[in-house]
Amino acid sequence: MAKRKTGVAPLEDDVPVVDWKKLNEKDRRTVSALRELAVDVADAATEKKDPVIRIPSRSLSNVMFNEKAQILEMGDKATSRTLFNLSQAKSFLQTMLVAEGVNRLIAQGKTLSIRGMYYQSKHTIKGIQEETFNSQDESDPIIEDLEVVLESLREELHLYAERKGEMVGNIVLTDRGDRIDCSRMGSGGYGIPSIVEPEVIELDPQKCKADYVLHVEKGTVWQRFNEDKFWKKHNCILTHGGGQPPRGVRRLLYRLNKELGLPIYCLLDNDPWGYYIYSVIKQGSINLAFESKRMAVPDAKFIGLRSKDFEECKLSPSVRIALNDNDRKRARQIAEYPWFVNKKKWQKEIALMLKNGFKLEVESLISKGISYVTEVYAPQRIAARDWLD
Amino acid sequence: MAKRKTGVAPLEDDVPVVDWKKLNEKDRRTVSALRELAVDVADAATEKKDPVIRIPSRSLSNVMFNEKAQILEMGDKATSRTLFNLSQAKSFLQTMLVAEGVNRLIAQGKTLSIRGMYYQSKHTIKGIQEETFNSQDESDPIIEDLEVVLESLREELHLYAERKGEMVGNIVLTDRGDRIDCSRMGSGGYGIPSIVEPEVIELDPQKCKADYVLHVEKGTVWQRFNEDKFWKKHNCILTHGGGQPPRGVRRLLYRLNKELGLPIYCLLDNDPWGYYIYSVIKQGSINLAFESKRMAVPDAKFIGLRSKDFEECKLSPSVRIALNDNDRKRARQIAEYPWFVNKKKWQKEIALMLKNGFKLEVESLISKGISYVTEVYAPQRIAARDWLD
Repeated sequence: MAKRKTGVAPLEDDVPVVDWKKLNEKDRRTVSALRELAVDVADAATEKKDPVIRIPSRSLSNVMFNEKAQILEMGDKATSRTLFNLSQAKSFLQTMLVAEGVNRLIAQGKTLSIRGMYYQSKHTIKGIQEETFNSQDESDPIIEDLEVVLESLREELHLYAERKGEMVGNIVLTDRGDRIDCSRMGSGGYGIPSIVEPEVIELDPQKCKADYVLHVEKGTVWQRFNEDKFWKKHNCILTHGGGQPPRGVRRLLYRLNKELGLPIYCLLDNDPWGYYIYSVIKQGSINLAFESKRMAVPDAKFIGLRSKDFEECKLSPSVRIALNDNDRKRARQIAEYPWFVNKKKWQKEIALMLKNGFKLEVESLISKGISYVTEVYAPQRIAARDWLD
Repeated sequence: MAKRKTGVAPLEDDVPVVDWKKLNEKDRRTVSALRELAVDVADAATEKKDPVIRIPSRSLSNVMFNEKAQILEMGDKATSRTLFNLSQAKSFLQTMLVAEGVNRLIAQGKTLSIRGMYYQSKHTIKGIQEETFNSQDESDPIIEDLEVVLESLREELHLYAERKGEMVGNIVLTDRGDRIDCSRMGSGGYGIPSIVEPEVIELDPQKCKADYVLHVEKGTVWQRFNEDKFWKKHNCILTHGGGQPPRGVRRLLYRLNKELGLPIYCLLDNDPWGYYIYSVIKQGSINLAFESKRMAVPDAKFIGLRSKDFEECKLSPSVRIALNDNDRKRARQIAEYPWFVNKKKWQKEIALMLKNGFKLEVESLISKGISYVTEVYAPQRIAARDWLD
């Protein structure tokens, strides 16, 4: 087995050196931030001071809603992580290990899963027989710390998680040099990657004929819309995120909206989970507020399902699903979100769901006919601009 | 709200009539089987006899391993489901409702999710205020019943579930008329559909240059192999199934193996779950033995991870994950499977994992270098034909 040095991650035989000339602009920015971090620590050591990393606080108390930009933002609170503090020494070490790993990824021009980063950074510390990381639950938060310290998205750190979500529609894009024509993707569709940064996915306004994006919650609903060639009839792009959309899907929706100017229409279940998915697409995730400015789509519209739909669409009573205590609790919490609290239409929507006492899935429209959702519901709502935002 | 008749599913205004001329051969076979079922019931009613459906038993006691074909098969046991039996009347009704729904799907040339079928078949029975189906847990088994009664795969009943899994590599296929070049799919890949029957996905030996299929367990590992262009360097096809592969992925592996003659190499975790995934790909699922003859790939090979790899690859002790009681129990169960029980290499593999006392994930190879798995491990194992089967 390869020799290990105390407190040093198991390095490959040939530790890659960052070749500045080969880096793109974004990687240069990230590497500069990493070097700054490293130099600060090294300087402190040279000066025999306690090395310290300033980490912006990711706690809820440091998250606020920017009314003007209509997105979640982090405040100015930060904590210090120092090496010579018994309760912080290990997380200090962990932060350095992950930073070193990210530097290596950029030098190699490779990407790695967050599980892979855990394995890459994990080793036994010689002498004390303790592991640098005991589980991925320890390395994931360190990655999030680095995102805020370096002001880089995880994707810019060359890290990804398991991906979900597909896309079809009237758009041609370039993915690592391959031309992807999303109007010729059959029933399967194009798998939306985890990392959709401009260096990977190139979007060109000249190659997008679509008028808007219809984002649906689940793959099964997406299949219905794709089979009915909704995107062809209505000249749009069709995406789904397999439930709560992963970051790759959210970032792609953001780019389609910002760079190509496409409206984003969301078709989600009429339940607190559907409201929450919309809230995350629109304003960002409360837990990861720092990413919102490059992921949130404040002008995304919620076209349904709506609490009024049971009456309005004359749905069968059989499709109602009774709310449980947790649903009611979540609904009340969501109604208090700063971006919903002053919106009359949203307050009415949530109040009506609570009054109804039941929730509705998009699939419930099937009781009106297999293609009711693609031929009647979605086109009518979009044409009438009948949505919540 | 539309009028409902007692015991009749909520029909659309224009109930589609099956146009025999427009059906493909497979749909004709399914519709014939559906009609036979319906005629039997109608005849019994006319003759004032108790209508009965003979349903092949899907219980474990009716599943056996066909040594010659090396797949799981169902035996001859069957149960009778009759209308005039208090404990069977409801499931009889449910069977008819789903059969009617399938007939409608074929007539319309559409497909539907199994959740959609639940909603389509659910309504309140007039007079007794009881629901035809209370949850999808009731409709899913009825769909499986119909599969065995009609001797049709679920996909042939035009039904699908949530899909998972992507594909890239040196193959061009046709998906609902669209030409899909899997060597030009960028980082995202082609999403493997739920329904990959020949009517949807056309495979042409002339358009497949690949020498084999490498199937990996997880999307994150697949991304590593795709980023390193493994399929290009080694002229193969790269698939994953997001853990336990869904039916669409298994059926596609089967077709790639049977129709194009490609070997299937599986790269899975060294744990009971990895063994089980391999077992399902190879011999079929015990719960759904009737599907094996059109899904199982008996000559699939297990290239790793292997229990010997900790020593052989000189892995860091840090990457070991201790087995828990459930792991040990599952490992012993799997060792008893009829297709493993007489295989010395598999017995040795499982015994060594139990002796090791730990399991290993594919990602653990990252401790040897980010691309060790794509540049060293997989090529060496395949070149040396060092696998289990």
